[in-house]
Amino acid sequence: MKKWSGRFKKKGSRYLYSYTSSIYFDSFLFRYDIICTLIHINMLLKLRIINKKDFKIVKKSIFFIYKKNKFKEIFEDIHLNLESLFIKYTGNIGNKIRTSRSRNDLVNTDLRMWVIDRGKIIASKIISLLKILLLNSKKNYKKVFVGFTHFQVAQPITFGHYLMSYYEMFKRDLNKMLFFIKNISCPLGSCALSGSNYRIDRNLYSKKLEFKKLNKNSIDGVSDRDYILDIIYVFSLISIHISKFSEDIINYSNNCLNIIILGDEICTGSSIMPQKKNPDIFEVMRSKIGVIIGNLNSIIIILKSQTLSYNKDNQEDKKIIFESYMVIKDTLDIFIKTINKIKVNKKKCTKILYKNFSTATDIADYFTKNNIPFKISHEMVSKIIFFCIKNKLSINNNIKEKIYKKFSFFKKNKINFPKISVKKSIKSKISLGGTSPKRVKKNIIEEKKYLNEKINFLNKNF
Amino acid sequence: MKKWSGRFKKKGSRYLYSYTSSIYFDSFLFRYDIICTLIHINMLLKLRIINKKDFKIVKKSIFFIYKKNKFKEIFEDIHLNLESLFIKYTGNIGNKIRTSRSRNDLVNTDLRMWVIDRGKIIASKIISLLKILLLNSKKNYKKVFVGFTHFQVAQPITFGHYLMSYYEMFKRDLNKMLFFIKNISCPLGSCALSGSNYRIDRNLYSKKLEFKKLNKNSIDGVSDRDYILDIIYVFSLISIHISKFSEDIINYSNNCLNIIILGDEICTGSSIMPQKKNPDIFEVMRSKIGVIIGNLNSIIIILKSQTLSYNKDNQEDKKIIFESYMVIKDTLDIFIKTINKIKVNKKKCTKILYKNFSTATDIADYFTKNNIPFKISHEMVSKIIFFCIKNKLSINNNIKEKIYKKFSFFKKNKINFPKISVKKSIKSKISLGGTSPKRVKKNIIEEKKYLNEKINFLNKNF
Amino acid sequence: MKKWSGRFKKKGSRYLYSYTSSIYFDSFLFRYDIICTLIHINMLLKLRIINKKDFKIVKKSIFFIYKKNKFKEIFEDIHLNLESLFIKYTGNIGNKIRTSRSRNDLVNTDLRMWVIDRGKIIASKIISLLKILLLNSKKNYKKVFVGFTHFQVAQPITFGHYLMSYYEMFKRDLNKMLFFIKNISCPLGSCALSGSNYRIDRNLYSKKLEFKKLNKNSIDGVSDRDYILDIIYVFSLISIHISKFSEDIINYSNNCLNIIILGDEICTGSSIMPQKKNPDIFEVMRSKIGVIIGNLNSIIIILKSQTLSYNKDNQEDKKIIFESYMVIKDTLDIFIKTINKIKVNKKKCTKILYKNFSTATDIADYFTKNNIPFKISHEMVSKIIFFCIKNKLSINNNIKEKIYKKFSFFKKNKINFPKISVKKSIKSKISLGGTSPKRVKKNIIEEKKYLNEKINFLNKNF
Amino acid sequence: MKKWSGRFKKKGSRYLYSYTSSIYFDSFLFRYDIICTLIHINMLLKLRIINKKDFKIVKKSIFFIYKKNKFKEIFEDIHLNLESLFIKYTGNIGNKIRTSRSRNDLVNTDLRMWVIDRGKIIASKIISLLKILLLNSKKNYKKVFVGFTHFQVAQPITFGHYLMSYYEMFKRDLNKMLFFIKNISCPLGSCALSGSNYRIDRNLYSKKLEFKKLNKNSIDGVSDRDYILDIIYVFSLISIHISKFSEDIINYSNNCLNIIILGDEICTGSSIMPQKKNPDIFEVMRSKIGVIIGNLNSIIIILKSQTLSYNKDNQEDKKIIFESYMVIKDTLDIFIKTINKIKVNKKKCTKILYKNFSTATDIADYFTKNNIPFKISHEMVSKIIFFCIKNKLSINNNIKEKIYKKFSFFKKNKINFPKISVKKSIKSKISLGGTSPKRVKKNIIEEKKYLNEKINFLNKNF
Repeated sequence: MKKWSGRFKKKGSRYLYSYTSSIYFDSFLFRYDIICTLIHINMLLKLRIINKKDFKIVKKSIFFIYKKNKFKEIFEDIHLNLESLFIKYTGNIGNKIRTSRSRNDLVNTDLRMWVIDRGKIIASKIISLLKILLLNSKKNYKKVFVGFTHFQVAQPITFGHYLMSYYEMFKRDLNKMLFFIKNISCPLGSCALSGSNYRIDRNLYSKKLEFKKLNKNSIDGVSDRDYILDIIYVFSLISIHISKFSEDIINYSNNCLNIIILGDEICTGSSIMPQKKNPDIFEVMRSKIGVIIGNLNSIIIILKSQTLSYNKDNQEDKKIIFESYMVIKDTLDIFIKTINKIKVNKKKCTKILYKNFSTATDIADYFTKNNIPFKISHEMVSKIIFFCIKNKLSINNNIKEKIYKKFSFFKKNKINFPKISVKKSIKSKISLGGTSPKRVKKNIIEEKKYLNEKINFLNKNF
Repeated sequence: MKKWSGRFKKKGSRYLYSYTSSIYFDSFLFRYDIICTLIHINMLLKLRIINKKDFKIVKKSIFFIYKKNKFKEIFEDIHLNLESLFIKYTGNIGNKIRTSRSRNDLVNTDLRMWVIDRGKIIASKIISLLKILLLNSKKNYKKVFVGFTHFQVAQPITFGHYLMSYYEMFKRDLNKMLFFIKNISCPLGSCALSGSNYRIDRNLYSKKLEFKKLNKNSIDGVSDRDYILDIIYVFSLISIHISKFSEDIINYSNNCLNIIILGDEICTGSSIMPQKKNPDIFEVMRSKIGVIIGNLNSIIIILKSQTLSYNKDNQEDKKIIFESYMVIKDTLDIFIKTINKIKVNKKKCTKILYKNFSTATDIADYFTKNNIPFKISHEMVSKIIFFCIKNKLSINNNIKEKIYKKFSFFKKNKINFPKISVKKSIKSKISLGGTSPKRVKKNIIEEKKYLNEKINFLNKNF
Repeated sequence: MKKWSGRFKKKGSRYLYSYTSSIYFDSFLFRYDIICTLIHINMLLKLRIINKKDFKIVKKSIFFIYKKNKFKEIFEDIHLNLESLFIKYTGNIGNKIRTSRSRNDLVNTDLRMWVIDRGKIIASKIISLLKILLLNSKKNYKKVFVGFTHFQVAQPITFGHYLMSYYEMFKRDLNKMLFFIKNISCPLGSCALSGSNYRIDRNLYSKKLEFKKLNKNSIDGVSDRDYILDIIYVFSLISIHISKFSEDIINYSNNCLNIIILGDEICTGSSIMPQKKNPDIFEVMRSKIGVIIGNLNSIIIILKSQTLSYNKDNQEDKKIIFESYMVIKDTLDIFIKTINKIKVNKKKCTKILYKNFSTATDIADYFTKNNIPFKISHEMVSKIIFFCIKNKLSINNNIKEKIYKKFSFFKKNKINFPKISVKKSIKSKISLGGTSPKRVKKNIIEEKKYLNEKINFLNKNF
Repeated sequence: MKKWSGRFKKKGSRYLYSYTSSIYFDSFLFRYDIICTLIHINMLLKLRIINKKDFKIVKKSIFFIYKKNKFKEIFEDIHLNLESLFIKYTGNIGNKIRTSRSRNDLVNTDLRMWVIDRGKIIASKIISLLKILLLNSKKNYKKVFVGFTHFQVAQPITFGHYLMSYYEMFKRDLNKMLFFIKNISCPLGSCALSGSNYRIDRNLYSKKLEFKKLNKNSIDGVSDRDYILDIIYVFSLISIHISKFSEDIINYSNNCLNIIILGDEICTGSSIMPQKKNPDIFEVMRSKIGVIIGNLNSIIIILKSQTLSYNKDNQEDKKIIFESYMVIKDTLDIFIKTINKIKVNKKKCTKILYKNFSTATDIADYFTKNNIPFKISHEMVSKIIFFCIKNKLSINNNIKEKIYKKFSFFKKNKINFPKISVKKSIKSKISLGGTSPKRVKKNIIEEKKYLNEKINFLNKNF
């Protein structure tokens, strides 16, 4: 149970041991510790700490241990457990493996490799998400939908345009993720904190372990945990965006709005109310942001005013990053699957848009194009709408006469009150990024190309 | 897999099912769901929904299920699993149990009972901690220790006095915990959200389930999660206080300060540096605050702007409170055990106190008691210390002549430079709450009495 | 610019001075520093540090300074500024005021007094809020409203019942606030950290400064900042509850739901869309929770692993608590004013409730009361609703024949399909806390009495 | 006071007005609103909404208003205030400015420009910090310093090497900052949310306003606030690193360690303890992280589950980003100034390193180079140290005989116990990133070059 006995008089307490042990989360790092050890014994061979024969024996035992995929969980961490296996299988040679290596730099290398691999998995899931958003945007690039501001009916949009706004959010998340994982550097060889007494080749370590960067200061090499914060920060962004989408869908599928209809297969019922059809899955997705933001705070609090260099506080980072990864991965998987189950209630959308004067801006713009300054036409349309509400008129009815009587504005300016349909309103938003189907379609085509190039680049470079 | 089939056309998806299922954390609530059901069938008997014979059959089956302590995990939550068991064992009678009861009020009752019980366990652990702090304070009420402000040597204190400052913090935590759990109210009978169509006796529910309060509004009854926030808030306070103590111990056992000596059994070594003896356990305790504060934020984020009444977001609260409880419980256990392993290096303390002019305030007070206004005497002592530092003199050396030559102040005021030992300084802090052993001892005796009365009260009332 | 010159060789830097100065926020504490000083010179008279004549001179100068309400902001904090004024006006006597007093205990006393006073102001505002909620609940205790779960139409409730659910939340907040401020203890006399060399009477300090408790350990006395956390925690609860209400109102006043109609005077328009009427004020209130929760985290991070005893980190607490107070005070003021501007659209509520099968549970209960086990009747009603949706039938139409043909269940059980109106559903929720107008009215009367007793108690005891 | 009067019946309340007004923080955006308006009237000219004469008049009035730098604060936000000025100075032409522009896209453009400019200011301050770290590293690249792990003496390092570890942290922060501000895109022309009815050239907007990217979806264009989160995230990283450095310095300048000596000009004294010299400034810097992390949480909470597209909640983001910027800017300024005031107590460092067996790893490595497997030599050195501690021997004394008698190991292996000085230990850490002066110096030279290239690149491209 005690490993560093020479300097100590008493054995470590059992309770201390289990409280400070990291063995559960370390098991995730098993694969990376094996790889690092393989690279390291290569270096020990170069340094002539071990000879070719030793090397072969250790290498063989490493593969054997990896295949068996079991290590006795009797020591406080994975590094010690593996070492004990090496000694068991190779005798005295195993005693040499710890040469020029500390748990401090080793765990920070293992964990970085884990983070890079998991970061790539999440990146690939975001790409799947982007693809499905593109696909559904394409299907719906003309489909009328309701645009809200302040959760009040604002202007007509298309559902494709709406989905593409989330595409933009997740595209940003992807680029941030790729930027962060690209910048994770290799600290192996930093040893305890001051570097090695041996002529090790740190560039070789880095290259063989497929890092894109080398950590250039051994003190920073054992203490830096910024990369964990970075990755959880991107998870936070992803979960914020998912929480927004979930909120939207929950709102839109409320019985009274009903502009979104969810497939039965992604809804649940009530144990007491027979009529209920609840969007549980979106509520659960919305709540998962809590876990991620909680973990973001956990890691920040652990790092806050932590004195240089390595401190055991950092052990807790594993639980935090592993849990965050599992939550974000599962949530992305679910999110991707739900998108196809979301259908637009086109009829209801159109009804809502007409009923709530959603083309008012277009009417004001019509006047403006007929030489009425926008501020004036805005004021006029505003008054007409108030009149319509009071008199229970729809702005799309033939309200010409009534308005002509009421508002001298029209006579004075010799303008007919325009008929602007929801479709026409949508069609006329022709500015880049606007909701007109033409624009949205063009945007989808461009982004499809962009995404394919991105995937090709990533396949080559990551 | 699907339970609310009548209103739905398609079966629920498997992936949805596993993502939104709460069955893992629900298993913690098993016992409470059983108790609530027992109380509920009593009510159904009173309401004549079931008859005496039915009642006996169901009761028997409940005890049988509880004893077997196993429920098939095929439904999305514990309530449905138990119901399916009832139906299996009692046939049609089981179909009646859901009468006048919703998952909404049931889960909120189960979880409150769990929180109250766990809150009491933590309260009892704080009491153990307070006892051990009292015990060690008593052992050390005279033992010289170093008092810091700004982590600079400030004034002599005793180690007992130091420990009693933590006693005060955890006493506050205890009282807040008891206040919060006392105020958790019983929501059973709130049903879905609007109350029950049956003449249920909610006071009886509350009394039988041993709540101290009754929830008075059924909408609030199904949606209120403040009690989870409250309990995690107290956990946060506890963990802040533990983080402070841990920081102190890590600082004090630094090789250069060395005023605290830790037992070998609570320290660990290094894989590369043979001389190391690290206070790992305190570093891990310090980092655990991260998890708790993370969870505090998780639950806040989930509750933020959640619309009334019940939403599935709240399912996530179980993971958060369960994890928080486990972490705080384990940390308190460890913390309690470490306190006896902390020894004061008295010799080093005395040396540091003398070397760093820790009695300077006492000297200034001596002058003040001899009619020099404090601001003037403070200034004078300040100058003497600067002189001593420059000339490498200790203030406790016989520096009379040198100072008499240098500072006309003494001649003018006809005051001898006082000899004030560290012990004398400590002894003279006679104000209530001060560090003088007399005061500290008296305080310990009072608090011992207070704590015993508290324990008696709790035994009777909780 | 430099105040503690004797021990230092060089003057303090100007930039350091302005960065570490707390003078802006200290100005809030001016009044409390004055009061503490008055109490303190009384003690100095008792201790014969100053004589009666001195006492009168200082007292007069204190009142003079307070009246002028101006202090030169040339020193780093308020305590030094006041001292310099005392010396200016009283000469040598002013030099004595610092006897047996440190900035460490003084600032912690000042700030506690400020917090207690501000806590009381917020408590009184919550009471105003509770009153207005009671008033509006009474006005609306019969008014039909829509109850949601999962933001899906669930069951009919009354608007009075809805408002009373918020009454419960804020009542809890009030009680927590009162509990916390009652437990803030007086630390004056703790001096630097180890207590005083003088025979001061700390009970007298505490009593004269109107504290309800005395801090019993001088180290804790200068370092404890738990009370700030406590108060911001209650602010957090208040803001969570306000955010929930705001979210509700924003949702309910959405054009499609439209069950709440907001007064024009609390809405704003759009610069571009003439038809818009936005619930800005509720959006701003909802966002204010961000500031409060941010500050909760700020203070936690500052306290995390802060070594004993006083550290300058704590200076930042003033900014945090002052800002939090201002935000919560303004938000409560606005919140109170908006409640009267919220009107229920009764007609729309009724329409929504009928259209969305909100009485389905009542129908199932009707069957249950006719000897059909609830699980069976739930299933049956569920099927009928699915049938109605498919055939575009309202459950309140005369659907008897169609259903009789379709569902053999009715023939078999010889039950007529019941007619249950929304009003009847509401009326029958007669369980304690339920939505039936009788229950709600009774609850309002009880709470009115409770609140009046509370106010009387507070007037006497706080 | 009311601006959107046509659609409203009643005037807005005064209290609503002041609570929801953003005018205080908007004043920071004055300059950017002016620039955007200039670019916009250019577009209106192109679109023939205004003619050349109009254009000239408006342009002149814009410059006039900017020069006067005053706007009446009578409207709820800056955009309305400026519009009213335009109308005042240009009459009817002013009424046209709002054409094809909404507050929604305008404020998001203004704020992005502000963030980019402030991001650049912070980037330039980080560069100053990196320069001063390089300078001081160069001065101290050979200076012996103490390396800690677990805040226990670990291995000898140099102070230059220590400072370069912070250089690495802030270099990462710089690169993240540059990445984020480079990716902030131009949303102008998104209008309310669905795009413009006019043939505006959004690429021209973006180019003229010097953005590096164009926002490609108008819904995202008005709602995206990720950039604020990004920038505060980088501030968080900076403040975490500063909090670590501050903690180090506070620890290292503790009287007992005393390995760092702070200039008098950055320390303060005590009002009661004449001997104190406190590192206040580092404590205040350490606490500032609280404000930044608080703000990080504030903005996250505001964004959490915010429904699309623009909501007034976002108004609060200005307070958050402005405050964060001010705090981080001031803290960086102070931090940069303090670095030169930090001196190493070389003598004390050497003493501590010898006394605490800091070269133990080197001794173990010496044995390893003499064919003793590291695990064995680690164990042996560990035992020797325990022997030394027990017998109060320094490992650097001539302990040969005593050890030879005690440990058969040496006889058996025919190895002399090595003499390894602190300097030799440092010199031999020759691995890349290690503490050997040669390596550190080389690293400094490389980084100096890197930084100069970076500055050149930024001067050209930002």
